[in-house]
Amino acid sequence: MSFSFVSHLVCPKCSKTYDHNKLHQLCTCGSPLLVDYDLERLKEEDVIIDQARNDLWRYHKLLPVTSEEHVVSLGEGMTPLLPMPELGAELGIESLFMKDEGLIPTGSFKARGAAVGVSKAKELGVAQLAMPTNGNAGAAWSLYCARAGIKPTIVMPVDAPVITRKETAISGAELYLVNGLISDAGKMVANLVKEEGLYDASTLKEPYRIEGKKTMGYEILEQSGSETPDVILYPTGGGVGLIGIYKALKEFKELGLFKGNQFPRLVAVQAEGCAPIVKAWEEHKNESEFWEDSKTAAFGINVPKAIGDFLVLEAIYETEGCAVAVSEEEIQQALGHAAELEGTFICPEGAATFAAAKKLRDKGWIQPGERVLCLNTGQGIKYPDTVEVDPLVLQPGEDLQRNKENVK
Amino acid sequence: MSFSFVSHLVCPKCSKTYDHNKLHQLCTCGSPLLVDYDLERLKEEDVIIDQARNDLWRYHKLLPVTSEEHVVSLGEGMTPLLPMPELGAELGIESLFMKDEGLIPTGSFKARGAAVGVSKAKELGVAQLAMPTNGNAGAAWSLYCARAGIKPTIVMPVDAPVITRKETAISGAELYLVNGLISDAGKMVANLVKEEGLYDASTLKEPYRIEGKKTMGYEILEQSGSETPDVILYPTGGGVGLIGIYKALKEFKELGLFKGNQFPRLVAVQAEGCAPIVKAWEEHKNESEFWEDSKTAAFGINVPKAIGDFLVLEAIYETEGCAVAVSEEEIQQALGHAAELEGTFICPEGAATFAAAKKLRDKGWIQPGERVLCLNTGQGIKYPDTVEVDPLVLQPGEDLQRNKENVK
Repeated sequence: MSFSFVSHLVCPKCSKTYDHNKLHQLCTCGSPLLVDYDLERLKEEDVIIDQARNDLWRYHKLLPVTSEEHVVSLGEGMTPLLPMPELGAELGIESLFMKDEGLIPTGSFKARGAAVGVSKAKELGVAQLAMPTNGNAGAAWSLYCARAGIKPTIVMPVDAPVITRKETAISGAELYLVNGLISDAGKMVANLVKEEGLYDASTLKEPYRIEGKKTMGYEILEQSGSETPDVILYPTGGGVGLIGIYKALKEFKELGLFKGNQFPRLVAVQAEGCAPIVKAWEEHKNESEFWEDSKTAAFGINVPKAIGDFLVLEAIYETEGCAVAVSEEEIQQALGHAAELEGTFICPEGAATFAAAKKLRDKGWIQPGERVLCLNTGQGIKYPDTVEVDPLVLQPGEDLQRNKENVK
Repeated sequence: MSFSFVSHLVCPKCSKTYDHNKLHQLCTCGSPLLVDYDLERLKEEDVIIDQARNDLWRYHKLLPVTSEEHVVSLGEGMTPLLPMPELGAELGIESLFMKDEGLIPTGSFKARGAAVGVSKAKELGVAQLAMPTNGNAGAAWSLYCARAGIKPTIVMPVDAPVITRKETAISGAELYLVNGLISDAGKMVANLVKEEGLYDASTLKEPYRIEGKKTMGYEILEQSGSETPDVILYPTGGGVGLIGIYKALKEFKELGLFKGNQFPRLVAVQAEGCAPIVKAWEEHKNESEFWEDSKTAAFGINVPKAIGDFLVLEAIYETEGCAVAVSEEEIQQALGHAAELEGTFICPEGAATFAAAKKLRDKGWIQPGERVLCLNTGQGIKYPDTVEVDPLVLQPGEDLQRNKENVK
């Protein structure tokens, strides 16, 4: 009885293979490595998904951790798939759904990558690692590392959400801020890794984070049952989640668990202030260019050049998806509407996907009756600055009724 | 096929009964009302728990909403029950677990009460409601009300966690701050309710919130399987969760779903700066007295006099539990240890339960080998002030290795 059906690592560019029982980072050709499984053998199993588990480890046979004792879990996964009928009515989308990744440890979908990435690092005997982050990934990896007994060094921009600093610090991680972007943090981490020989946990420089992220795809398929979404919108920074969802679709198809004729069309959503994937897609290119002076309040997608950009673009092209950029105003408006109409306080990155759905519906790319799924990658409470509020302050005993007239 | 087996409302003080199909607040005798079910009839059902549902609505037959169409859900419930071996080793408790209520909409266990309370309010045709709150309940009720199309008026202390203001405001609720305590907010809401005839959603003044909270008890029993905890520690402000867990234990026992000989001993944990239940328990009383000048950073348990105090004390006495107060320093220390040792960033109220577990273990009240469950009621990220951090800010390109020496 194998806990995992992992077989090896493979380079999606040059096809070179590597042993998953040893530590690897990028391929010698510079490309990220992906994890492969023995799906032929897994197909023969009576049970592929462990239904008794309510977290992402229900897919342990399709995850890279070979021994259950190395699993480092805080209960991540199986987040709700919520109908959004009122917001859908406003956007003109009859069947609108949200996969809510706010209900996960650390309040951000980064927990998925951290859970699987840290578990595999533990299995491989890693004692220390380093990573650049836009905040949420650093927070998640720090907390999972604390649980695993691994010592992390984290570098994030000074502008990253302040709460993520605190999550990182309280876990005991070594934290630095950089007066720049995640790309600057990335270079500093690369130097440190080179000098000190630490494990580099940068996005896609270790092959396992994506395996955690792909479970979003499995869950979407499981939770949708026979009503697979026609379109999935994903807020795209590094794009690991989108690459992961595409990988999940292909794996489920090969296992006979995806029965449809056509994959959901995958949409990469970016902010107008940082839209390298959108630009590349519009120009029919297979790689993106560094986006100068990038800026957006949706901080998690402020990634000027993603190392896996070619994989993101491939997923879009292969599923007949698209890439779309939205403005800061559109993000802010969608954020407010989601709260007022559906009671969901989402993060700006998640809000961007609803803004994008509206745009795509308006221009007819999303057609009437199509099932649309937006991915909210985290909790609004991690971004307090998105809400300005100045309520009336009363003294004890003051009359609320009289004061009601003074409130909007 | 009944969706709910609710039968009526009953007063735990004077035994008067009420129709659950009509709006009720307190009993005419002034006591809170509790919900009763036709457990005899439910016992005959083949299926009591709807295993297909991954949220608290799996217990819909034991919840007061009679028609599924009135369910207002954001995917709440079935939060993880995590082993805490490292922290347990430090506290001298071999089998230490945490029920993590951070993984729930709004990041606070208040979502359970709001989900069921708002659903039932919707079923009963409520259009507007009002409530005082220490923050998290107001935020949760506001967001669920937005989803239900109900208009809430919320009054909270100026010192309540700032993020809860923002959650309340973004949902479109009417929000007031009061320069005082939740007891002051309560009086102002009572006046407003009297003047305007709004539905009063104050703690235990409506009978349904507790039904949401009790599902924590069901889940603890389900998730523990044959290994029921010997002790459950609960951070006690209004105490609704503890009353609810006790109610859940009794209901499961009557249904034959609790097979043990003895209920877990229920422990009410309070802060030294606001410990009315602890004082009452130490004095063997059945009710508490108003605690003057209450103060604690664990804001959710800053409740100087709980309307359901007699029910909390009954639950403690009946289960042979106890009540214990912890200091601010002990809370802060437990909060840090939970993050460093287990990777869990918990709220101060949750941290108080670990501090209390340590005290009870030290004095031998918790015995060697006993299974101990601490209830973390929400996410640490809602309380950013519990973590002070002052990381080094570097310029792009600076050498991390050289700067490492400057960091603790």
